[in-house]
Amino acid sequence: MPSRSDLANAIRALSMDAVQKANSGHPGMPMGMADIAQVLWCDYLKHNPTNPHWYDRDRFILSNGHGSMLHYSLLHLSGYDLGIEDLKQFRQLHSRTPGHPEYGYTPGIETTTGPLGQGLANAVGFALAEKTLGAQFNRKGHAIVDHHTYVFLGDGCLMEGVSHEAASLAGTQGLGKLIAFYDDNGISIDGEVEGWFTDDTVKRFEAYGWQVIPRVNGHDPEEIKQAIETARDNTDQPTLICCKTIIGFGSPNKEGKEASHGAALGADEIVLTREKLGWKYGAFEIPQDIYDAWDARGKGRKAETSWNDAFKAYQKAHPELAAEFERRLSGELPADFAQFAATLIKDVDAKGETIASRKASQQSIEAFAPKLPEIFGGSADLAGSNLTLWSGARGVSQAEPDGNYCFYGVREFGMTAIMNGLSLHGGFRPYGATFLIFMEYARNAVRMSALMKQPVIHVYTHDSIGLGEDGPTHQPIEQLASLRQTPNLETWRPCDTVETTIAWKNAIESKDHPSALIFSRQALAHQKRTAAQIADVEKGGYILRDSDGTPAIILIATGSEVGLAMDAAEQLAAKGVSARVVSMPCTERFDAQDAAYREAVLPTGVKRVAIEAGIADFWYKYVGLDGAVLGMTSFGESAPAGDLYKHFGLTVDALVERAQSIL
Amino acid sequence: MPSRSDLANAIRALSMDAVQKANSGHPGMPMGMADIAQVLWCDYLKHNPTNPHWYDRDRFILSNGHGSMLHYSLLHLSGYDLGIEDLKQFRQLHSRTPGHPEYGYTPGIETTTGPLGQGLANAVGFALAEKTLGAQFNRKGHAIVDHHTYVFLGDGCLMEGVSHEAASLAGTQGLGKLIAFYDDNGISIDGEVEGWFTDDTVKRFEAYGWQVIPRVNGHDPEEIKQAIETARDNTDQPTLICCKTIIGFGSPNKEGKEASHGAALGADEIVLTREKLGWKYGAFEIPQDIYDAWDARGKGRKAETSWNDAFKAYQKAHPELAAEFERRLSGELPADFAQFAATLIKDVDAKGETIASRKASQQSIEAFAPKLPEIFGGSADLAGSNLTLWSGARGVSQAEPDGNYCFYGVREFGMTAIMNGLSLHGGFRPYGATFLIFMEYARNAVRMSALMKQPVIHVYTHDSIGLGEDGPTHQPIEQLASLRQTPNLETWRPCDTVETTIAWKNAIESKDHPSALIFSRQALAHQKRTAAQIADVEKGGYILRDSDGTPAIILIATGSEVGLAMDAAEQLAAKGVSARVVSMPCTERFDAQDAAYREAVLPTGVKRVAIEAGIADFWYKYVGLDGAVLGMTSFGESAPAGDLYKHFGLTVDALVERAQSIL
Repeated sequence: MPSRSDLANAIRALSMDAVQKANSGHPGMPMGMADIAQVLWCDYLKHNPTNPHWYDRDRFILSNGHGSMLHYSLLHLSGYDLGIEDLKQFRQLHSRTPGHPEYGYTPGIETTTGPLGQGLANAVGFALAEKTLGAQFNRKGHAIVDHHTYVFLGDGCLMEGVSHEAASLAGTQGLGKLIAFYDDNGISIDGEVEGWFTDDTVKRFEAYGWQVIPRVNGHDPEEIKQAIETARDNTDQPTLICCKTIIGFGSPNKEGKEASHGAALGADEIVLTREKLGWKYGAFEIPQDIYDAWDARGKGRKAETSWNDAFKAYQKAHPELAAEFERRLSGELPADFAQFAATLIKDVDAKGETIASRKASQQSIEAFAPKLPEIFGGSADLAGSNLTLWSGARGVSQAEPDGNYCFYGVREFGMTAIMNGLSLHGGFRPYGATFLIFMEYARNAVRMSALMKQPVIHVYTHDSIGLGEDGPTHQPIEQLASLRQTPNLETWRPCDTVETTIAWKNAIESKDHPSALIFSRQALAHQKRTAAQIADVEKGGYILRDSDGTPAIILIATGSEVGLAMDAAEQLAAKGVSARVVSMPCTERFDAQDAAYREAVLPTGVKRVAIEAGIADFWYKYVGLDGAVLGMTSFGESAPAGDLYKHFGLTVDALVERAQSIL
Repeated sequence: MPSRSDLANAIRALSMDAVQKANSGHPGMPMGMADIAQVLWCDYLKHNPTNPHWYDRDRFILSNGHGSMLHYSLLHLSGYDLGIEDLKQFRQLHSRTPGHPEYGYTPGIETTTGPLGQGLANAVGFALAEKTLGAQFNRKGHAIVDHHTYVFLGDGCLMEGVSHEAASLAGTQGLGKLIAFYDDNGISIDGEVEGWFTDDTVKRFEAYGWQVIPRVNGHDPEEIKQAIETARDNTDQPTLICCKTIIGFGSPNKEGKEASHGAALGADEIVLTREKLGWKYGAFEIPQDIYDAWDARGKGRKAETSWNDAFKAYQKAHPELAAEFERRLSGELPADFAQFAATLIKDVDAKGETIASRKASQQSIEAFAPKLPEIFGGSADLAGSNLTLWSGARGVSQAEPDGNYCFYGVREFGMTAIMNGLSLHGGFRPYGATFLIFMEYARNAVRMSALMKQPVIHVYTHDSIGLGEDGPTHQPIEQLASLRQTPNLETWRPCDTVETTIAWKNAIESKDHPSALIFSRQALAHQKRTAAQIADVEKGGYILRDSDGTPAIILIATGSEVGLAMDAAEQLAAKGVSARVVSMPCTERFDAQDAAYREAVLPTGVKRVAIEAGIADFWYKYVGLDGAVLGMTSFGESAPAGDLYKHFGLTVDALVERAQSIL
């Protein structure tokens, strides 16, 4: 019967071997956290390697994702569909073992990690999802949602600001099933952390309302076990278990040193490490008795079967709830959603309101959300400005955990990474808002939702100099372009209530990409459209106003500038210049149309002027070298919006003049 | 003789009047923090309103910058060149009183604030600058650098992650002259903070190693005074003074409520507030005795005169140090810098090394830094990867405060905002590094250095899929475009040692813009150039290889792709296609050249192909609708760099083929 230490050494051996073979990677963390992982995975983790998607599994997240070989070793040893050949392909093209854990590449990887601190914030999202979904669906005697979220994290995660935002909110929300393990090895890339990281982390997390278990020997299974028991016993507070560990544990010349962190140990040192650990097997060789001791498939199947039985009982007792639960987890929209949306769009068009698109957005939420209990809203302390609250919004809290809205506080990065966790967990379609400029505080988490193909809805209001007096710190310039240039993200900047409703519909229908919905602070006029034009909106770009025959010029605009383009086209017409107006609320969608459609909208050879109150550079893609762009080339200023549009030359007159100048 | 409360009420009156006149702004904070500000400014702040640039003044920073009218009122009342007419122009175009405090717009504003939390981080930079400069220049009996950094901040600042990064580092560095006032008013935009902000802030900051003074009544001048004394007495730790305040103090119907935070109180409520405060004067009316009591000009002139005397004594005792101190503060480079740089560039070219540009960057630092003691380096825990250390680098710490390098820890946002503070303070030219992708963690602080025209040097290595195995979380795609589209920022992506040295030279010479220097992980071949070509590098784009006569096609490339373009041009030549290669290390610089130069490099009518291992979209600006771009259109993958270049089609063959396809 292998000892716990033998089992942990299997992780160490696989990790150092795989990094050595790739000659790239991070052996230190897996070797340091192997004992903790062994106790957690063998004694506590509820999962079924045969079905990584079993809904009520515990979630395990590696926030210090550079230690990916720890996770791959655990998956391999426990019996997931990840063979030894996969481990040998560590960090190679098309392998299932990329350098950092990548969601969707490897069975059992719950989220992509590597950008430090965000795994912890994702974990807060997972734990919030579990708690909220449980509060919504569990019934007396039927705890069908009942799992833990475990997260490993390191010094780097704790130094990052996002750890503050996420941990603070986790404390406020009392996420008792969130259990974090801090790999306190005293080492970061620049060396011993005492020169730059002297926080009293215990005190810090106590200040957030966490239960903190200090000074656990991360190489003593009994201490680890006791800590996990204490953590699980506390259901009102998240727990941080501070584990003293030795990075690169077992490497005689590199353990405890930065040298073991981010590079292969080297063939000689690996020989010495095998010796020191008493590990007698060759590279990538795991003896059968150790495989047998790790194998979690039997236990996992039993756990899932038992949950399936419990769910059957739940179905019997609460058939409608059970059906809705299954729909929620499947990610399918209600069957009549498309019809509902079509009717809504017609109604919105008929109303023809002139309102701010942020207000139109709120009306969209108000219309869609009652149909979709999976919608989970929020704002980074700007609800009244972002207009994210609706009549059915109820904040989640310790006292009322069954809500559908989170008051995230002034925590844009935390909010966004938490939304990624909510979405990955399943059962929720999160939207969260801030001012467009403060998207930058959350920038990398927005990218992570795109990389992970999560249909998170990022709502950004106050979208340009049109916000006025708050000035250049608050006025986005380059942010629209930055979002549009992010792969797998759809960015919508609607020009009126109709485009806003269609943007929301498309964001809700997405299964494989996040959306950024960009809204104005100021009122925007409703545009008249035919049914065909309304149908074309979701092609991302379409002809909103046309001339007879081939136009002399095409005016391309988005959002608040579409109205200006329409007026300019009219003035041009009066001067005998036939102008087409193309509204382009979503450039990614337009680019995805076939060549014939794109050519029909933007015929080759017809000159173009684009106008947008954002950075001009982006639009050369559509107007070319002989077109023109009216946009921003500098930061904004503090003044009423109308003054700013004039000051920066974004006016009907300027557009007319510019169009004529290039003809 | 006006009472302290009369003096504070002058701030309240001016703030509510100015917001009312603009019908836009935030009266709540100024009214809530007026008593604290009165004690600090009247009893402690060392400044000279007649000379806002006097070097040894205390620095005052409003991290909760939406309360700008507090600061404007203080400047006006103390005797700065900011008249009552300026206050009446609050939030209007071209005024000196924009919506948020903007550096360079208003005498006495030390930094631009509004994006929450960053003012605190700037303040940490100011305090670090003061401490480091003092350690470098003060001599026994000559404390020529000796001032405090005071910062006001609110709940929002404390919720933001950047507050964690900055406060943690301030504790580690023991910045004893940093004194922060927390406006604990229990209100944020979404309402009473208890639903989303339950941190024990006292405990949290104690965990960072700060002195914390809890439960100060922010409306009791004696308690405030006592707290400031305690703060100033502690020279080893930064101090947080937690002030309980009432937002909108004095407004009978809105005080203590969110309603007073971000909108004018309204004419009726202002009448009632005047009554409640016992303020008998009209809008924008301040009685002379109150002006007299506030006037800080006499005291300020005296303080500066006394410092000038002290500096004269210092000059006498340490003439060389004093001259260098004056040079450092002036921001002027040593007189022989240009000549030195020219020689260096020649030498580097003669060496012709093929090395990674991050290595070339380290060599540039090694060459320039000994000439420039104002250089203050750092990295967010990636010194060995960013290659930011040089032989003369010495880390600043409590024990050795006179260094020239900061080990910032894994704190990209904190690092960047601290660099902004270092630069604004004067005496330093900071550079700080991380991987290009993690620029995103610091995104808004990069923008703030551009908005504030600070010549901060942002060093970003591991600049593309060329970093290889770490995979898509670490591989920048859209980040280059995002930086280039930021106004007033110069982004350099050099292709070899020569362009790298020139990039560093230009970044160092800047007085009015930050630079982003983008470097490769992998080795890049040295390119041969004539002296004229070397001179053209700093035009941002230039002909690196030309054909005889007008070329059939132009290949535009940057950084690691320049080598590919050179090889492709050779292959094309072999096929009888004359190709020009344009290296474009800095598009902003190229755009700033005159039309004749740009036309000479990129003649109208000649087709173009751009190649860059970044998002393709950006380059249509230079190739137009009939050109082509070889770039990225998706996220990267984890694999060795060579495999990735092939996988994503960034090869010489692909470039040749693409060029031929558009001819």
